[in-house]
Amino acid sequence: MALFTKEEALRYHSDKRKGKLEVISVKPCDNQKHLSMAYSPGVAEACREIAADTDKVYEYTNKGNLVAVVSNGTAVLGLGNIGPEGGKPVMEGKGVLFKIFSDIDVYDLNINATTPDEIVSFCKMLEPTFGGINLEDIKSPECFEIEQRLIEEMNIPVFHDDQHGTAIISGAGILNALEIAGKDITDIKVVVSGAGASAIACSEFYVSMGVKRQNIFMFDSRGLIHVGREGLNEFKKAFAQDKDYGSLADVMVGTDMFLGLSVKDAINQEMVKTMAENAIIFACANPDPEIAYEDVKAVRPDIVMGTGRSDYPNQVNNVLGFPFIFRGALDCRASAINEEMKIACSKALADLAKEPVSQEVCDAYGVDALEYGIDYIIPKPLDPRVLTRLAPAVAKAAMETGVARVHLDLEQYAKDLEVMMTASKLRTKGVVDTFGYDF
Amino acid sequence: MALFTKEEALRYHSDKRKGKLEVISVKPCDNQKHLSMAYSPGVAEACREIAADTDKVYEYTNKGNLVAVVSNGTAVLGLGNIGPEGGKPVMEGKGVLFKIFSDIDVYDLNINATTPDEIVSFCKMLEPTFGGINLEDIKSPECFEIEQRLIEEMNIPVFHDDQHGTAIISGAGILNALEIAGKDITDIKVVVSGAGASAIACSEFYVSMGVKRQNIFMFDSRGLIHVGREGLNEFKKAFAQDKDYGSLADVMVGTDMFLGLSVKDAINQEMVKTMAENAIIFACANPDPEIAYEDVKAVRPDIVMGTGRSDYPNQVNNVLGFPFIFRGALDCRASAINEEMKIACSKALADLAKEPVSQEVCDAYGVDALEYGIDYIIPKPLDPRVLTRLAPAVAKAAMETGVARVHLDLEQYAKDLEVMMTASKLRTKGVVDTFGYDF
Repeated sequence: MALFTKEEALRYHSDKRKGKLEVISVKPCDNQKHLSMAYSPGVAEACREIAADTDKVYEYTNKGNLVAVVSNGTAVLGLGNIGPEGGKPVMEGKGVLFKIFSDIDVYDLNINATTPDEIVSFCKMLEPTFGGINLEDIKSPECFEIEQRLIEEMNIPVFHDDQHGTAIISGAGILNALEIAGKDITDIKVVVSGAGASAIACSEFYVSMGVKRQNIFMFDSRGLIHVGREGLNEFKKAFAQDKDYGSLADVMVGTDMFLGLSVKDAINQEMVKTMAENAIIFACANPDPEIAYEDVKAVRPDIVMGTGRSDYPNQVNNVLGFPFIFRGALDCRASAINEEMKIACSKALADLAKEPVSQEVCDAYGVDALEYGIDYIIPKPLDPRVLTRLAPAVAKAAMETGVARVHLDLEQYAKDLEVMMTASKLRTKGVVDTFGYDF
Repeated sequence: MALFTKEEALRYHSDKRKGKLEVISVKPCDNQKHLSMAYSPGVAEACREIAADTDKVYEYTNKGNLVAVVSNGTAVLGLGNIGPEGGKPVMEGKGVLFKIFSDIDVYDLNINATTPDEIVSFCKMLEPTFGGINLEDIKSPECFEIEQRLIEEMNIPVFHDDQHGTAIISGAGILNALEIAGKDITDIKVVVSGAGASAIACSEFYVSMGVKRQNIFMFDSRGLIHVGREGLNEFKKAFAQDKDYGSLADVMVGTDMFLGLSVKDAINQEMVKTMAENAIIFACANPDPEIAYEDVKAVRPDIVMGTGRSDYPNQVNNVLGFPFIFRGALDCRASAINEEMKIACSKALADLAKEPVSQEVCDAYGVDALEYGIDYIIPKPLDPRVLTRLAPAVAKAAMETGVARVHLDLEQYAKDLEVMMTASKLRTKGVVDTFGYDF
């Protein structure tokens, strides 16, 4: 079933050049003239311009296209606290995704730091170098405080993808699934299995989109979160129900949406049977979802089913968000990524799913066709239109909410993005080809 | 005279892709299989290996080839304290040099930090990600404390190039100049104009090489450093003479070596005339040295003259050091760069100058020939043998002094380096060519 063996995955990381990222000089360095412009004495001209006007750092350096992926490795994938070294392959991988999907340069910084104070102080020092910061795989509840403080104290976008990524993608899916079902978002009942960073951020995002807070039922390993529970942190407390409504099976009855950010087998067919008509299940546990696609469809073919897997319909994949959110935010030089920009991203993604998909994209996923409907409510990551729709939508929202520092002509911007990605793929391919890999 | 105009130097930094560095995926990313190995779920295999044995981070990530260039922009080139943004073009340029000369990947980190505590704490957090740290353009005396503390508290090499770079290159020049003159290093009298980071580090290095401390006469802007001076920091105090021996002109009489790390016109022909026979002048002020090459030769053709300029003989250029010191240190996974490794680098550089130079290298510098003698005591940066001689010499010293964690077969290692650089140049050229620059 898997696309690769363990040996292949390890060899992919270690073969020829170790790791997954390389830093290349992007200007010619063939002779003395080039070197004297790249470094002393010619570089002094660029330094002087920036010293006189700090904003020129966006003109003469890579800052405007550079994102720091910062992690301490305390909550890596499904692996838990494996430390900064253990997390480095993931952060390099994040850099690869940023590059492949939106031509953003990433320095992955896997740091020896555990307290919010240390991480906040570290990130704040980075501001002169980076256009944005993507926090990654930092455990909750520390991640909430870290992100919030950095948003308040920094003038570049700071975004914790584990929190907002799934929120934005699943949000797009909800918009379309509700449209197909003819339901109003303000009426739906939502069950969330899991109460980590992503679960909390998804729930907050759904509230931003219109879901009523009291209609969200969140379960952690100890059961439903409600006011009678002791020792709840403030983030869980925000979703505490007024009383204990019983077990997950009890609460699933009549539910319009189930969001799983927990573990394999968290729900079963009996529970699914009791859900509302045309309900939604996003079972995001990886690699094995809370319930299998086939098991849902066997008992309830009307349900919209999505997972974290690329080999089933409606993959809820963060890569549909962060590359384009940062692309749009960097290009209009946004000082932050606000709620409006995230919602604009969700909506643009939802809208794109309603448009015809090229045969090329279908082929990449080994399917005959992708047509808007309950098995295709979320676009595919390899669809090149995702970039040209989402980044401009995010930039537009930034401009409209006053956080953008550069005005973009959005039509021209979308065209420029296409040209940029073509060139970027060519360069990356050139680098990879010199190694002659056999994967 | 200059190789480029101001406009060209600025355009070099801003044309097409902003800045000078790009981060590229170095493994194939053409399809679903590749992406699922680069990121979830395949990346988990590499994470688990590292979580079980932290050393495997060198096998499955780019850590072993990755250097952080860390600066706060408080002492940039000859420009002074222009801040971290102002210094970023220099740090990117340093990354370019690391890449072009030794295929090392650099993340430039220009940070908002001024106190040693902040910078030390920042750098210590970087240890899981980087194979080494190159401190750059941090003002003295803070730079001494920062480097010293990091060397004591970290297990990866930390090297402040502004201190040791010029020391190592000029040290090589001294070895050869003294050999040609038939002088013993323990007898020579040295005058140092300047008392910044580099002047102090050069002087300390010369002491390591055999120069007697009491034979070094250091001048700062207030004159000779001696015990009668008040308010000297501990680093200058280490070179305080027992009394005031007078002005620079007074002390220059009979001097065997003048090291200028100060300003244009710091010395004149009258002073030069009084120096010892077959003396050495390294006038490193940039772009205009303490005294011009022609002015020295007009009155004292016997003197060995070097400057920071590429258009005159004996260029004292740091790029002859740091790329190869780090290359050697990374490849034997040294836990530090110790004095023995620096001296080994100097000696290897000095030895290389005695060997015949290829016509290709001469052509790159627009000269008919380069023959060992007073106008060629230091090899040229574009000579490809510099890499294959220096890196193995540094690694050898690391292995002999017990700081290496990996044993290298030095003969094979030198061969591998050649292959590596050929591939690296090909990749970089591929990236640059896609832009079609006209520099």
